[in-house]
Amino acid sequence: MKWNYTQPVDIRFGAGRVAEIGEVARERGLYRGLLVAGGHSVRSGLAQRVLDHGRGTIEAVFSEFSPNPDVTEVDACAELIRTQDVGFIVALGGGSALDLAKAASVIGAGSRESVGSITDYHGTGKPLPLTHLPLIAVPTTAGTGSEVTCVSVLTNRAAGVKAPIVSNGFYPELAIIDPELTYTVPPYVTACTGMDVLSQAIEGYWSVGHQPICDALAVHAARLVFEFLPKAFTTPDDREARERMCEASVTAGLAFTLPKTTSSHACSFPLTNRYGIAHGEACALTLDYFTRINAADPEGRVNALARSLGYRDADGLADAIADLRRTLGLRENIADLGLGESDIAALVRDSHHPNLDNNPVVITDDNLLALYRGLASGGAANADKHNEREERQ
Amino acid sequence: MKWNYTQPVDIRFGAGRVAEIGEVARERGLYRGLLVAGGHSVRSGLAQRVLDHGRGTIEAVFSEFSPNPDVTEVDACAELIRTQDVGFIVALGGGSALDLAKAASVIGAGSRESVGSITDYHGTGKPLPLTHLPLIAVPTTAGTGSEVTCVSVLTNRAAGVKAPIVSNGFYPELAIIDPELTYTVPPYVTACTGMDVLSQAIEGYWSVGHQPICDALAVHAARLVFEFLPKAFTTPDDREARERMCEASVTAGLAFTLPKTTSSHACSFPLTNRYGIAHGEACALTLDYFTRINAADPEGRVNALARSLGYRDADGLADAIADLRRTLGLRENIADLGLGESDIAALVRDSHHPNLDNNPVVITDDNLLALYRGLASGGAANADKHNEREERQ
Repeated sequence: MKWNYTQPVDIRFGAGRVAEIGEVARERGLYRGLLVAGGHSVRSGLAQRVLDHGRGTIEAVFSEFSPNPDVTEVDACAELIRTQDVGFIVALGGGSALDLAKAASVIGAGSRESVGSITDYHGTGKPLPLTHLPLIAVPTTAGTGSEVTCVSVLTNRAAGVKAPIVSNGFYPELAIIDPELTYTVPPYVTACTGMDVLSQAIEGYWSVGHQPICDALAVHAARLVFEFLPKAFTTPDDREARERMCEASVTAGLAFTLPKTTSSHACSFPLTNRYGIAHGEACALTLDYFTRINAADPEGRVNALARSLGYRDADGLADAIADLRRTLGLRENIADLGLGESDIAALVRDSHHPNLDNNPVVITDDNLLALYRGLASGGAANADKHNEREERQ
Repeated sequence: MKWNYTQPVDIRFGAGRVAEIGEVARERGLYRGLLVAGGHSVRSGLAQRVLDHGRGTIEAVFSEFSPNPDVTEVDACAELIRTQDVGFIVALGGGSALDLAKAASVIGAGSRESVGSITDYHGTGKPLPLTHLPLIAVPTTAGTGSEVTCVSVLTNRAAGVKAPIVSNGFYPELAIIDPELTYTVPPYVTACTGMDVLSQAIEGYWSVGHQPICDALAVHAARLVFEFLPKAFTTPDDREARERMCEASVTAGLAFTLPKTTSSHACSFPLTNRYGIAHGEACALTLDYFTRINAADPEGRVNALARSLGYRDADGLADAIADLRRTLGLRENIADLGLGESDIAALVRDSHHPNLDNNPVVITDDNLLALYRGLASGGAANADKHNEREERQ
């Protein structure tokens, strides 16, 4: 088996470590910083705390962007970087702030004439330049793992597309992961981001791009989610649960950034784009279905993963995913959307994102039809699929 | 819990990948290479193969060094680097070639006047300069994990000291891990290097510097050793076993380079220095003893490790280590050396290497005395210790 591994992001993990930001910036010779932070961080006073911890190294703030950041917002941030002669970026927030900052760190590192707009690269396949401003990522959710990945998920509202874009220039220089920043995350967001962590870990493991280092980290992350996500959800001030979910998030980030995600992420994009279902909730909605389908993986890796996590087989793991989703009060189907056949056909069509090709078994339109029809009619997809597989045996 | 993670070494793993060396050197703009390779690689023709794969990027060879490389050999290599205006280093071999090349890549990167000799740094505590030539590490054993670590183990024969030296400048730029290069490693070397892998994984896990990413990788590596080392030892042409042991080696390297090794490594140094016991065999000789002692770790981590590896508790793991050592035909004691009390006192004294301070329970001189007396009298140390612990309960 051939595999590569690259993990250029330095990590500092621990409660209270956001206070080190000025010290690490100075150590690395970083000045004239731009803080990219969402409106929520500005209103809560967290952005100001980070500015204070920056001890003079951070001079400007950009917060004009939306929860699923748009390409026009990336270009606006890049323009600010150029005009203010920014020297490095601190990205503070959930996936939105980090993903916007990653893209802006590349687009803003050159002139508008030489580098162009993020729209020249997003969804076009054109490789991004590797030159970028140094980025310090400070996540406030557990989370997207974005602080250690080379992936940025951006939306082009004008074109109706939300999709990831990948570049080696997107790796942050440093991730400061401070569990204290997640203490105030509300239960619904805890649930969604936690299920995103689980999807990343499981999909990174079964991806056709799997490799052993990421496998080991995926198992570690998935185990933590099953143990600590229910606690972090029901008892938001459980410090251990919050810390272990941050550990799960960064470990899952390391586990999927090279192998990439697969079917559940591919299906999450149209569910979010068309119906506004939160990213992690959209991933969780199909993760058990694909766990059962992927049990047919000829290498037996999905059953092996299930056993590593303490389940008898892939069906046991799928059941545990469905149970966890129920415990967290996340949607189990999309029956409430009242979708017709043409809506379902559109979901099938839009699920053919390149990530679908990373799935360990081929996902046909019939699979997707069965999935979405089941979800639209109240969640029978898994049972259907289960029966179908039993008949085949 | 606070922890940091850094892993700057790019990894390319897979059978036949040594052939990529010229391509990766050119991609990275590396020219005027120096191949550091042991006499064995030169005689076997492997060094010539690497030169050929270098496609003109490698122009010189240095092979004048011993199995436990001496500081004078580091200085000689550094002088060659300066006089030949070397642009990068390819280190081909076991730990010796890699560790010598790491040190020479720093000492040779500056003038003799500015940087000095490796003896200015080895064993003195003076930090090494961070400037270094780019290094591509190509291990031929599975192994020391040296290809992904910031550690170099050097010997100063004049001073009678073998000891590791650590610097962030020692991280290779790239590790090419080609399991084919290990197919011809003889069984005894396979056994010794394989037990070194196990020691690194287990010691990295229980080190006071432990952290979760390294924990996950340590468990992965240790599991592979228990499963595949007996196969690689008894059936040297078992390609899967060779490949999985290479995977174990690099994963263990990642698992211990930050937490560092502990008691077994500390004790291995005098056993090697004084009695010429091979490094991995020396580590294996005390690993079961320290597994039993470290079961008293107040965090319960050693018992947790044992359970992760499928054993009932730390004693079960210690028994499995002793069984594996027996299977591999490695020495179980040092009774044949005919040591007296003054020799044992010297071993106790010389085991106080800084690595001993990384052990999760304090190791007293009484512990060391019991260990070495037991080994010298035929291996009763473990039983003694075991009884002692039971009496305390």
